[in-house]
Amino acid sequence: MRTWRVVLVGFGTVGRGAAERLRDSAAGLADAGVDARVVGVLDPMLGSVVDPAGFDPAALLEAAANGSLRDLAGATAAPEGIDAITSIDADVVFEMTPTNLSDGEPGLGHVRAALAAGRHVATTNKGPVALAWPELADLAQANGVQLRCEGTVMSGTPLLNVCESGLAAAGVRSVRGILNGTCNFILSQMEDGADYSDALAQAQQLGYAETNPAGDVEGWDAAAKVTILGNLVLGGALTLADVDRAGIDGVTQRDVLTAVDAGTRLRLVGSVERRDGKVVEPKVGVEALVLGDPLAAVAGAGNLLTFDTEALGPVSIAGPGAGRAETGHALIADLIAIHRGASA
Amino acid sequence: MRTWRVVLVGFGTVGRGAAERLRDSAAGLADAGVDARVVGVLDPMLGSVVDPAGFDPAALLEAAANGSLRDLAGATAAPEGIDAITSIDADVVFEMTPTNLSDGEPGLGHVRAALAAGRHVATTNKGPVALAWPELADLAQANGVQLRCEGTVMSGTPLLNVCESGLAAAGVRSVRGILNGTCNFILSQMEDGADYSDALAQAQQLGYAETNPAGDVEGWDAAAKVTILGNLVLGGALTLADVDRAGIDGVTQRDVLTAVDAGTRLRLVGSVERRDGKVVEPKVGVEALVLGDPLAAVAGAGNLLTFDTEALGPVSIAGPGAGRAETGHALIADLIAIHRGASA
Repeated sequence: MRTWRVVLVGFGTVGRGAAERLRDSAAGLADAGVDARVVGVLDPMLGSVVDPAGFDPAALLEAAANGSLRDLAGATAAPEGIDAITSIDADVVFEMTPTNLSDGEPGLGHVRAALAAGRHVATTNKGPVALAWPELADLAQANGVQLRCEGTVMSGTPLLNVCESGLAAAGVRSVRGILNGTCNFILSQMEDGADYSDALAQAQQLGYAETNPAGDVEGWDAAAKVTILGNLVLGGALTLADVDRAGIDGVTQRDVLTAVDAGTRLRLVGSVERRDGKVVEPKVGVEALVLGDPLAAVAGAGNLLTFDTEALGPVSIAGPGAGRAETGHALIADLIAIHRGASA
Repeated sequence: MRTWRVVLVGFGTVGRGAAERLRDSAAGLADAGVDARVVGVLDPMLGSVVDPAGFDPAALLEAAANGSLRDLAGATAAPEGIDAITSIDADVVFEMTPTNLSDGEPGLGHVRAALAAGRHVATTNKGPVALAWPELADLAQANGVQLRCEGTVMSGTPLLNVCESGLAAAGVRSVRGILNGTCNFILSQMEDGADYSDALAQAQQLGYAETNPAGDVEGWDAAAKVTILGNLVLGGALTLADVDRAGIDGVTQRDVLTAVDAGTRLRLVGSVERRDGKVVEPKVGVEALVLGDPLAAVAGAGNLLTFDTEALGPVSIAGPGAGRAETGHALIADLIAIHRGASA
């Protein structure tokens, strides 16, 4: 059993999901040889606090529900700003601030600072890894630490971890999937008769789509995931700008129904391939899929990814694309992987 | 990089699949820090040979295609019988003899001998693990070695490895799947109008079913896999006799078409659950599945498994259920896992 001192950066939905999983999966973590101790929580709304003895995740969740972490037993105030990340004596940083695909901030600065200070990083934030993976991977290597991001694609559904374990040496040739649940939900609703704006409104009402839905419907979110898959699974050095990207915002109900009449379904598909040692054709766009295609069977807000491999042919993994505990689990899985990698 | 000296026990379809993958995935293995060296091959038909310097997998495949391993450069004859497994100086044994669900032999004796002699074991043979997992797991632990069997369920599709890595601490509550491609092919053909005996004959013609198809159509193969999943994924101590088992041999075309008329599909489903800390209800039987059930969408000889988890809800993995390179990959994945576990 090894104690891992963890700093949680961001205590919104994802941060609380991680705390829930730390609370509920202590036995599973112990089975894996991991004793996780939350020694700091940094959140601009709730207050940033430190306790070298470790916070009880349940107490953190209760305090957060009451609007402030400052009065927690054992808590002292953390330094302000980015310095807090490196001033707290810790082994791992969970970076869980919201994704920003323009400049990656504040997550990019957090990840850079943590790696440079010799902290392992697990992040659910697509911004830093989609915009700056080559730089960050070098920085991690130079500092002898790991940068992991299972939660950036299909929440905690095991994908990146699988490519390192069960699919290692299987020769993954391409990755192709339904990577954005919001777009898939909207296209599914349009097949059932809704027009685009009604389907979008419904997605917003259900909490799938943001008030500003551009990140989803213009394909940015899926493009970020394609970038991440191209780099982490296929060994590329892509950034978001390399992806040939189109969204669903130009799709009309007539387009959807014409596809249905032709025995197909419109789906927003992301894909990237490895060919002759190079990572090529990273793209996101609407495709008319025949009904036998496993991607066509994904309904509603579901997510599915297919790896085409040399040894096994196609292997598909379906699981949740979002959610609090679902994304929280990604950090637990990454922590276990950090533990195993560090002792290997 | 660490050199792993491997003995291949059995050089039929699976053994040659493993050799193909050793030949074709050397770069992937090296990335994982593994240098695999085949120091012995034991096969009663082709001859059993040893070379401490290591055989070239390509040369082994060529010699096997010509009917004998005895004239390979560097080869000396191995001792006869089970002694060979322990007399050859090696780190890992790949046990790849055919499955026998009556008494598990000869595989069970091979696995016992290898573990007792302090060899790690990777096996694709369902017999030993379905009949004697509790004993073998204890034996492995007592000798400080690993016993792995990714290839016993859905060939090399990552399942058991995923439960140890990405799904560790996710709280797997149940496992449910289409675990026998032959039965699924026969039921699919019957939906398309074939009667049972024609569908079975076609499955035999395509090489899916054995001349004696009882192991598949009576549900024994799926029941062995349910036993393995209950033990390795859910932490049980089941043996094959614990599974409530029925096959497809009593299914008529009228049954299949009646199910279709009712908007369902008959599928042979295997499942097992964990409830109140106990592994319960291991079973295999024909179920009428509604069309929205992901298992109902599995056509032909496909395989699909769904893990229901506390953190993620359902996560499904689809991949090949059989095949030479497909099963061969399982041994590569297990070797990498042994390497990682041994250095952790």
